[in-house]
Amino acid sequence: MTSFSIGVDLGGTNLRVAAVTPAGELLETIHLPTRLSAGPHAVLDDMAGAIAQLIGRQSGEFLGIGVGSPGPIELPLGVLHHPPNLTGFDGLNLRTELERRLGRTVHVDHDAGLAAYGECLFGAGRAHAVDSLLMYTLGTGVGCGVILDGRIWHGMQGAAGESGHGPIIPDGPRCPCGARGCLEMYASATSIVRRAQELGLAPAAHEGSAAQTGNGATPPTASAIAQLATSGDKRALQIFDEVGYALGLSLAHLVNALDLPLYVIGGGAAAAWPLFAPRMFSTLREGSYVYRLSMPRDPNIFEPGKTHVAPAQLSDAGILGAALLPTAAHATATA
Amino acid sequence: MTSFSIGVDLGGTNLRVAAVTPAGELLETIHLPTRLSAGPHAVLDDMAGAIAQLIGRQSGEFLGIGVGSPGPIELPLGVLHHPPNLTGFDGLNLRTELERRLGRTVHVDHDAGLAAYGECLFGAGRAHAVDSLLMYTLGTGVGCGVILDGRIWHGMQGAAGESGHGPIIPDGPRCPCGARGCLEMYASATSIVRRAQELGLAPAAHEGSAAQTGNGATPPTASAIAQLATSGDKRALQIFDEVGYALGLSLAHLVNALDLPLYVIGGGAAAAWPLFAPRMFSTLREGSYVYRLSMPRDPNIFEPGKTHVAPAQLSDAGILGAALLPTAAHATATA
Repeated sequence: MTSFSIGVDLGGTNLRVAAVTPAGELLETIHLPTRLSAGPHAVLDDMAGAIAQLIGRQSGEFLGIGVGSPGPIELPLGVLHHPPNLTGFDGLNLRTELERRLGRTVHVDHDAGLAAYGECLFGAGRAHAVDSLLMYTLGTGVGCGVILDGRIWHGMQGAAGESGHGPIIPDGPRCPCGARGCLEMYASATSIVRRAQELGLAPAAHEGSAAQTGNGATPPTASAIAQLATSGDKRALQIFDEVGYALGLSLAHLVNALDLPLYVIGGGAAAAWPLFAPRMFSTLREGSYVYRLSMPRDPNIFEPGKTHVAPAQLSDAGILGAALLPTAAHATATA
Repeated sequence: MTSFSIGVDLGGTNLRVAAVTPAGELLETIHLPTRLSAGPHAVLDDMAGAIAQLIGRQSGEFLGIGVGSPGPIELPLGVLHHPPNLTGFDGLNLRTELERRLGRTVHVDHDAGLAAYGECLFGAGRAHAVDSLLMYTLGTGVGCGVILDGRIWHGMQGAAGESGHGPIIPDGPRCPCGARGCLEMYASATSIVRRAQELGLAPAAHEGSAAQTGNGATPPTASAIAQLATSGDKRALQIFDEVGYALGLSLAHLVNALDLPLYVIGGGAAAAWPLFAPRMFSTLREGSYVYRLSMPRDPNIFEPGKTHVAPAQLSDAGILGAALLPTAAHATATA
């Protein structure tokens, strides 16, 4: 009879709730759609219901509840401030609303930080035997989490790890965040699709790929564009070359500033690793002499004591990180 | 009879050794030229001699010796690796060579990290009541030190805080570090002079300023160019506008990544604050939404809990940080 905690991954599309052992084993998972159109209280009711169900069905010692949420979220308070991926949630106190429904203590944190934390404890961090890493999550946007000496680095106002934003290419396209040429404008799934449209990469123009990319009326998905690139399409290859360039520039700044042993690339678009990694590594080598001081002979082969950039190893890092939150007494650090 | 430690600031031009109280008071300082042409062992002899003199002349309890050195320096070993500002010092073990001469334990660290540490404990950090900050030192090059939760952040190989380098403006001029458009290519005293030459800002062309800037045959100094800017010279103003732009871009990345409460600009070129600060703040506001979330109403007026960028308050931060090293049991963190 193993002990367990509850991890929640609240996304703009999917809501996932899992019972997780302290060793990072998923005992049971409930997947639900995030019913944004029904309003935040319906979503909270769904979440609380799923949590109560899982607690009721597990027989081991219950350790606590951790929730990962998109930001901006004020920590440790748990109040959401205009979260772009959770329409209608502005001003909601996620933590106290859940605590009221459940009658139990709830720990809340950023989804990107928790994904980095889960990946550090149970994924690439464990594989590389390090307790400091930075992780990008390439999804609808580009999230980023920073783990220093085994703790999530939150910064002064819980806003650390926003390295998906910032003027990586200062004359690049304007991001909704206000900056020009943010990493997110190149490396998110959304931006990969936008670039495909800008480059006239209409699926109908590619015979044989129509089935993968949908009909000509809907834009292709990022993974369909990755398939086009893999099959040799020059414009699709260019898009992922740009992803690699932007990632390499961003990494150069962060490697020079922090000199961490490991940088992890996760999220759906990270599956295109073979397409963007060459330009990412060449840009990083040129841009960061700190990287050159300690780069492995082959970037894809682990060497102890070297600086590594590696794909994420877990698809559930966020939910694992959330589940570990209640028992990680010193999981978090602030500035 | 107060206790004291010895702080050493080893620069490429000047060698400064001081007896310092735990409260950061300089009891006595010895200034010497760094005799690079005489070789590293002559410099080490000078340093050891000055340290021994100061220890002999102080009567309080002796607490230890801390030395700040330009990098790259392997820590905690203390071995220098091709330090660009200490010609002939490659491979030298600064720590053991000094310990051998003195028969005492010596603590060695990066000069930029120690300047940040000194500024955190006794300067802008104390004034803003924070124990995390990042400090740029605008000198011959651009140094950078990171203090997290009261400790110097070294990173995996002691190379953290190299934010003077990295492709801030990816199509900018090539830096000796290998990257294009590094902060150092805009904000160091050396680069300010280079830009003045590129813009044809010959001192002889400016009547009345010849006395400040030397004769036409020698390039003006960064401070002379600052004086020209202050007197309204458009090209000189442009140079400091570019300094502010590069600082603002670099800060945007670091504010978004780390969300620290304080960023400090020190070093000689920081005296030109009124010339570069406007563009620095406007670039930071545009480039970092994390900064916009918590910026003070007036960037020059301190508000508790806000994100501040401020000039350094100390001219001796490096030597104070070095002197504090022996007694700061947990002064350093690694990745």
